Amino acid sequence: MIITKIIPIGNEVFIMSFVNPVEQLTREVKEYRKAEYSVNPLFLNRWSPRAYSDQKISDEDLYSLLEAAHWAPSSFNDQPWRFIVAKTEAHLKTFHEFLNPFNRAWAEKAPVLVLVASSKKRDNGDPNGAHSFDAGTAWGQLAIQATLLGLSTHAIGGFDKEKARRLLNVPDDLDLHAVITIGYRGEKEILDANLQERENPSTRKPLKEVIFEGTVNP
Amino acid sequence: MIITKIIPIGNEVFIMSFVNPVEQLTREVKEYRKAEYSVNPLFLNRWSPRAYSDQKISDEDLYSLLEAAHWAPSSFNDQPWRFIVAKTEAHLKTFHEFLNPFNRAWAEKAPVLVLVASSKKRDNGDPNGAHSFDAGTAWGQLAIQATLLGLSTHAIGGFDKEKARRLLNVPDDLDLHAVITIGYRGEKEILDANLQERENPSTRKPLKEVIFEGTVNP
Repeated sequence: MIITKIIPIGNEVFIMSFVNPVEQLTREVKEYRKAEYSVNPLFLNRWSPRAYSDQKISDEDLYSLLEAAHWAPSSFNDQPWRFIVAKTEAHLKTFHEFLNPFNRAWAEKAPVLVLVASSKKRDNGDPNGAHSFDAGTAWGQLAIQATLLGLSTHAIGGFDKEKARRLLNVPDDLDLHAVITIGYRGEKEILDANLQERENPSTRKPLKEVIFEGTVNP
Repeated sequence: MIITKIIPIGNEVFIMSFVNPVEQLTREVKEYRKAEYSVNPLFLNRWSPRAYSDQKISDEDLYSLLEAAHWAPSSFNDQPWRFIVAKTEAHLKTFHEFLNPFNRAWAEKAPVLVLVASSKKRDNGDPNGAHSFDAGTAWGQLAIQATLLGLSTHAIGGFDKEKARRLLNVPDDLDLHAVITIGYRGEKEILDANLQERENPSTRKPLKEVIFEGTVNP
């Protein structure tokens, strides 16, 4: 099934068609990724490109991603995740300042950046040992909802956390995890040559390397 | 759309029908959960029940969940997640020994338990500051694939980590996060009265409490 999405650009409309990500693999994913076991195409279709188009994201779509993220499960349903969103030119400019130069070079094109943070304390004041784990779960759900909408995401760990903390007034009880780039994919030719080569869905280790039956060292 | 799943039980077959989780909300989710923004039903349909039926899980389905988990994104594609699976009677018995009594009482019914761990070191030996975050992402994908298959999951943080480490021979470079119960839902009447009352999809904070635009304290 082909899903068609109509995106307004100024006074014009842009029609984007993509395969239904829960039903079939995209062409490039089919070429680069091979699952060992039957799995919904959704998980294979999600990958982390670096080339973004000029296409803006509607607030409706952005909030759909954040909505999906916050329905993630968490320890005691404490929902420790926090999302600091940059979508205006001024906010994006501030975010660009704390990205490492390598990441900044490509991430500057993304129309939205979201810094994923998490509260180290539970709402009752107790330390929350699961806050990083739970924030990761929320980020995964954000990425999956993006895939469902034909959007791409790429999490960046390479940024100056102390600078981000200072520029965004992040209090000490929030931990900073990743800057998520969000946007529509662009032509890979806009990337530097070395990144063009890497602009493909990544592979995975054999599943047996990450699964243990019963005990770790039998 | 109604999805029908045929599950063999001994020499008989069990026919399970459920709504397509990417297309509509289940009855109980519709009753308990309300999204603020448009979002795929998949994320709302996933919740963490405690009542499991006697229904076993096929290896095909179990590995489908693990396959989904390991296609999660991770820092430098290091895939720090590790899954210690208990599905035999002997392995399940060992896992039950390190669950807190409150959780053990209901989790003993689940036909499969998966302890989610993560490697604190990258494959090149460097420390991996994102290992907990990435393991959380993988767990979220496991839970979403379970929802797609009509299976339920519930992550348990309440277990004795040191005992688990000892009983399962977990090396020091692996961190332990959560024991995931996996199974088909059962009647809530099998639970203690206090848990029966809580056997409903949980709600969420207002989205504005977890989202900041531009800076944390403007």
